[in-house]
Amino acid sequence: MSQPTDANARDFETMAIVGVGLIGGSIGRAVKARGLARVVLGVGRNASRLEAARRAGLIDEPLTDLSAAARRATVIVFCTPVDRIVAGVREAAAAAPAGVLLTDAGSVKAAICCELANGLPRGVEFVGAHPLAGSEKQGFEHADGELFQNRLCVVTPHATNSRKAIERIAEFWKRLGSKVVEMSPEVHDRALAETSHLPHLAAAALAGTLSAGNRELAASGFRDTTRIASGDADLWTAIFLENRTEVLASLSRFNALLTRFREALEKNDAGALHEWLKAAKISRDSLV
Amino acid sequence: MSQPTDANARDFETMAIVGVGLIGGSIGRAVKARGLARVVLGVGRNASRLEAARRAGLIDEPLTDLSAAARRATVIVFCTPVDRIVAGVREAAAAAPAGVLLTDAGSVKAAICCELANGLPRGVEFVGAHPLAGSEKQGFEHADGELFQNRLCVVTPHATNSRKAIERIAEFWKRLGSKVVEMSPEVHDRALAETSHLPHLAAAALAGTLSAGNRELAASGFRDTTRIASGDADLWTAIFLENRTEVLASLSRFNALLTRFREALEKNDAGALHEWLKAAKISRDSLV
Repeated sequence: MSQPTDANARDFETMAIVGVGLIGGSIGRAVKARGLARVVLGVGRNASRLEAARRAGLIDEPLTDLSAAARRATVIVFCTPVDRIVAGVREAAAAAPAGVLLTDAGSVKAAICCELANGLPRGVEFVGAHPLAGSEKQGFEHADGELFQNRLCVVTPHATNSRKAIERIAEFWKRLGSKVVEMSPEVHDRALAETSHLPHLAAAALAGTLSAGNRELAASGFRDTTRIASGDADLWTAIFLENRTEVLASLSRFNALLTRFREALEKNDAGALHEWLKAAKISRDSLV
Repeated sequence: MSQPTDANARDFETMAIVGVGLIGGSIGRAVKARGLARVVLGVGRNASRLEAARRAGLIDEPLTDLSAAARRATVIVFCTPVDRIVAGVREAAAAAPAGVLLTDAGSVKAAICCELANGLPRGVEFVGAHPLAGSEKQGFEHADGELFQNRLCVVTPHATNSRKAIERIAEFWKRLGSKVVEMSPEVHDRALAETSHLPHLAAAALAGTLSAGNRELAASGFRDTTRIASGDADLWTAIFLENRTEVLASLSRFNALLTRFREALEKNDAGALHEWLKAAKISRDSLV
């Protein structure tokens, strides 16, 4: 990891992280390890949790007052549940100095980015982002400064973003070790419904189908397939609601495939079952 | 691992493994590493593959003639695809000496065990078994002598099995490091539909739903959830067909959960979504 130049370091001089959980805590650790900011403010509602995160070395200064943090910040990264990002950004933007850059790490982008494309104070920009990294685990105790290394981060600008702001956010994630791709919030949400939200739904439905009496017989295949179902129910309720249309569309395609399988099995149609399974295997094997 | 006593070693003196793939090869390696048999015969259709398995140290002697192997065997373990086990057992049983013990490692039990409960020559017994170990990988190249260590092996006797034969098979799997549980073939199949066959189906449907253009956005959650979809399409076609009734019943319960989720999401019912996700999380978290 190359050391930042002075110019780069100044870019992210005072960074506020709002929501110091797994993702926020990992960003804090990574930023501090790489010297990307002079000071990292941690913002949250629970002062004792924030103080513990400070003691763990994830942030420099705990603050429960978002506006107070915003007044001092150069860059503010929102790592709260997706249903709290818009209100948080509006509150921070009202207090922040001109030139502040706001971004997030939410798993859903269209609802947030469209809402924040307009109405922010002059000189304050929000650029959405979504690092494809995480875990079914919760809390800063699981924070990992290498969480974003070699992962993909999707930056989802809207029409009113300046190229300069987009580039600064892309640069930030690259400095955390991620590969950055840019796409519209809508394209992101359609893709993530398929690659993340539907898999969560299927994993949860499998876990929900498991009878208590059969737990002992759940081996590694079941465990891997359902691991993400341990994700936080609050976080995921918000994600599903915010990406409702695309999740429902993905679920329809998934159901259509299940129906084709069921019909083939009901008819004892070995050829059709084989073809169905082979197509799925080819798709899965294409992920190297 | 304690060394076998002479009496134990004699139990499995000449072991024939029919189907030297991932499971058969792993059994061979484990049996040889633990000295559980004097000689391990490997039986298959492809002489050059068998010779390669011998060179890899998984078997002592390659044989393409099942009857010839059966005539020399004390114990015969069938590790072929589930739709080839019954015919293989009948062929081997006709050639084998009285006192031979036949078993298998198939993922489906009722169809096999019921079919083989009667009609075998006097003094020849088949006791079904299913080690809950494996991988989406195929071939003896992935064989692992520790594959069964600390895993569960389900032994599924039928009404005509002798207690002595059941105990010998249980002992065999314990000597390979597994924890053994005994249940009826029907109870096994109902449980495995839920813990293994339905998860395979869901993983494959997720992989099948993935658009080629979204592959880049498939992160670790998608990869874990769909890993088992890389399993062999032939093997899995046979498993689904042999456990058709229980798979269809599990699929109905899974579909009912998906429908409840879809209805809650269509209605923007945050409370119902949260309750649904929470129940799934509790179920998954119960697997320690």
